[in-house]
Amino acid sequence: METQEFRRHAHELVDWMADYIENVRDLPVVPKTEPGDIRNRLPGSPPEKGEPFDSLVRDFKDLILPGMTHWNHPGWFAYFPANNSPPSILAEMLTATIGAQCMSWQTSPAATELEQVVMEWLRRMLGMPEGFTGVIQDTASTSTLVALLCARERVTEYTFARRGGAAEGADRFTVYASTEAHSSIDKGVKLAGLGLDRLRRIAVDDHYALVPDALEEAIGTDRAAGFRPTCVVGVIGSTSSSALDPIRPIGEICRKHSVWFHVDAAYAGTAAVLPEKRFMMDGIELADSFVFNPHKWMFTNFDCSAYFVRDVDALLHTFSMTPEYLKTARDAEVANFRDWGIQLGRRFRALKLWFVIRSYGVEGIREIVRRHIALAEEFAGWVDAHPGFERMAPVPLGLVCFRYRPRGVDLDDSNLDGLNRALLAAVNDAGRVHLSHTVLGGRYALRMSIGQLYTTRAEVAEAWRLLTEKAKTLGRSDS
Amino acid sequence: METQEFRRHAHELVDWMADYIENVRDLPVVPKTEPGDIRNRLPGSPPEKGEPFDSLVRDFKDLILPGMTHWNHPGWFAYFPANNSPPSILAEMLTATIGAQCMSWQTSPAATELEQVVMEWLRRMLGMPEGFTGVIQDTASTSTLVALLCARERVTEYTFARRGGAAEGADRFTVYASTEAHSSIDKGVKLAGLGLDRLRRIAVDDHYALVPDALEEAIGTDRAAGFRPTCVVGVIGSTSSSALDPIRPIGEICRKHSVWFHVDAAYAGTAAVLPEKRFMMDGIELADSFVFNPHKWMFTNFDCSAYFVRDVDALLHTFSMTPEYLKTARDAEVANFRDWGIQLGRRFRALKLWFVIRSYGVEGIREIVRRHIALAEEFAGWVDAHPGFERMAPVPLGLVCFRYRPRGVDLDDSNLDGLNRALLAAVNDAGRVHLSHTVLGGRYALRMSIGQLYTTRAEVAEAWRLLTEKAKTLGRSDS
Repeated sequence: METQEFRRHAHELVDWMADYIENVRDLPVVPKTEPGDIRNRLPGSPPEKGEPFDSLVRDFKDLILPGMTHWNHPGWFAYFPANNSPPSILAEMLTATIGAQCMSWQTSPAATELEQVVMEWLRRMLGMPEGFTGVIQDTASTSTLVALLCARERVTEYTFARRGGAAEGADRFTVYASTEAHSSIDKGVKLAGLGLDRLRRIAVDDHYALVPDALEEAIGTDRAAGFRPTCVVGVIGSTSSSALDPIRPIGEICRKHSVWFHVDAAYAGTAAVLPEKRFMMDGIELADSFVFNPHKWMFTNFDCSAYFVRDVDALLHTFSMTPEYLKTARDAEVANFRDWGIQLGRRFRALKLWFVIRSYGVEGIREIVRRHIALAEEFAGWVDAHPGFERMAPVPLGLVCFRYRPRGVDLDDSNLDGLNRALLAAVNDAGRVHLSHTVLGGRYALRMSIGQLYTTRAEVAEAWRLLTEKAKTLGRSDS
Repeated sequence: METQEFRRHAHELVDWMADYIENVRDLPVVPKTEPGDIRNRLPGSPPEKGEPFDSLVRDFKDLILPGMTHWNHPGWFAYFPANNSPPSILAEMLTATIGAQCMSWQTSPAATELEQVVMEWLRRMLGMPEGFTGVIQDTASTSTLVALLCARERVTEYTFARRGGAAEGADRFTVYASTEAHSSIDKGVKLAGLGLDRLRRIAVDDHYALVPDALEEAIGTDRAAGFRPTCVVGVIGSTSSSALDPIRPIGEICRKHSVWFHVDAAYAGTAAVLPEKRFMMDGIELADSFVFNPHKWMFTNFDCSAYFVRDVDALLHTFSMTPEYLKTARDAEVANFRDWGIQLGRRFRALKLWFVIRSYGVEGIREIVRRHIALAEEFAGWVDAHPGFERMAPVPLGLVCFRYRPRGVDLDDSNLDGLNRALLAAVNDAGRVHLSHTVLGGRYALRMSIGQLYTTRAEVAEAWRLLTEKAKTLGRSDS
């Protein structure tokens, strides 16, 4: 493709992109696609000859777009948000064009140094103490795996990497997280070879927050039995219900027992930009590592996970690997981010974060996050005020967990589970909004996660209207 | 930022992007930046108030761009290429705009199914047999780690994930790769807990290809000593010299000993689109897993690593993890790619691959790759014909390894190392081309890797002119 053609097509796409941002609200959030629908419409073999770009764009519009789930739809209330934003998209355009591979300082000095600068900005924005150094990872799953690997190495005095299962005590690692902590911890424990059987799931209180005494007891029992407490993962904003583990008491227990303390604030971390929400970070200075995802609630395109560590040397000791062909003249003076994580190759991800923070300003980000939280509080109020609905967890941030529980009908939890499953399907089926679900305390709960950049009160009200309307219909057909 | 503003800025950036593609050849490949130069020019704190986009663009042009290394410069001859291309950039624009998070089929059906389709296309393009199923990972480092984790689980009958170091034989894994295999294997062995001390580096022949007899012997010795041979990594196109391990005999040894066989063709895999280069894949049907990076030589933006496996169940068994909040109604019928690797969240990476393959067509990709290989052969001819230069390895693909060895002067290898180090610095310093280096057989070697999309004979000739000219100067100043 000649540059002139590229220029023309790119201008055409820009108009499509702006139209998409403007009109995505009119598309169904989730498509009515059946498995195989798209695959069956695409050729099984690649074309021998190149095709004109116009036919690609046509197929993109006709075949792909109707099969996409629109995470940046203002009616997106499922999971957690995966926000982009106009300044972030603009940055991605530049990043894609330069196409730099940012493994080492030398292979893109500006990318490395901008990453250092924006990570320091984020540290300040979240009110984290000095002494934390940041690096961009792809996802919180990766960040948590990185933390577990560092914990594994530290507790074995960096012998596990060399000796593996032959390292002293390699069969006795224990890891701790609440029963509500994210599945990426299970996955990380498996992958890091810490042994999923020795992941201790610690009890939570009725707010779904980890109970420190239970943690202390578990660590004590394990120590007495000859296990090696290796890592505790505290959660700020659990996936099911945005529960807030008490970071300070957990951190104190970790310090006392010399256990690596990793804090997973993948979703909630962004809310620490708000002074009124910073209480949830209390004790963060006791953490060894901390992760939050600007690609969730900070309007920065996926992927962008902000990972902070207290001890950079522990990270480098765990990941650094410099064969001859990667050596550069500057290695002694600079940060080579390839040594700060799993991957060798790295995209230039700092640029979009820089564009987002500067475009909105910290105040601008605060305003949007505050608006989301206020909408969640309002929605929670509607739930609380409705006799047929029941809230299932506190609402410290943008997530409301609730269920339909029709009055005057005596249904047990299992019947209510089925009813709410049907309600979720009915509400989502309309294509105007999209919610997801979880299980809290053994009971099926609907999750209304409010955090999409363009969500307004109108979409939240629409979700509530659909919920109450479909509930009424279901109630009738049930009775 | 309002959509109208976005539209305007995006159009402006498109013109910048097209200009960049056109004019990157006039920029220095690597900037003359000193560590700290960029960081020191950026504020230590984020702005409270949002800033106009024009000032971001200005700073991008004035502060960031002059500090970037241009991997998509036609004078890029370092490492391996990290190519993008106009159709790939156009796809990235769309991907960034939709901002879908493609963890599950349900969270973007079209992305999942398009990924299945393009991976099948790639399988056919490379002439791989049926029975391999593909998934996009971020990098070859990750793909190789994924392979090592699957090998670890298979050899322990999937008990290591649960039991970790307490699993039977966890202290006796052995892994095999040639002395020339990539450092990501060392890193993967460390991270997967296989024990770096038990990574056996197998001898190579004088073409830097693994010697199968040495492998067989090593496995036999280990078996006899009670070790558990777990994985062999074969390399098609080593990083130092693009050496080609003999896949068939290695695969036969792996079959015989029931050892996982992973093939790392990160760079070279693309060349299998050429019938005349497909000999290097001979025996690939014996592999358990195979990786190559379209983001290297197939003109697809980083990151895009194509990972193929024979046994999808082994992959799912190793990585699958489905908490309640991730369950969807379709899970039984579809592929949820979050279960095919480390990360939960995933970008929509299939789109750029689809755009690239369709824009160029297989024939178009073949033409470009052939041109690169022909240029490398021509360059190798110049080296061979010059009495002051010495070629250090065969040139099966686009990489030429060589060194300066002035006639009539009796220099030992250590002096030649220093001389070539100085030559590399002098050549790169001009900013017109950028080469990197390695060590082959203990001797410092320059690497001329020809594979950037826009590279023509002119840049290759310019590199050669600089090499011979600077060599002459160095020779004089030395004597």
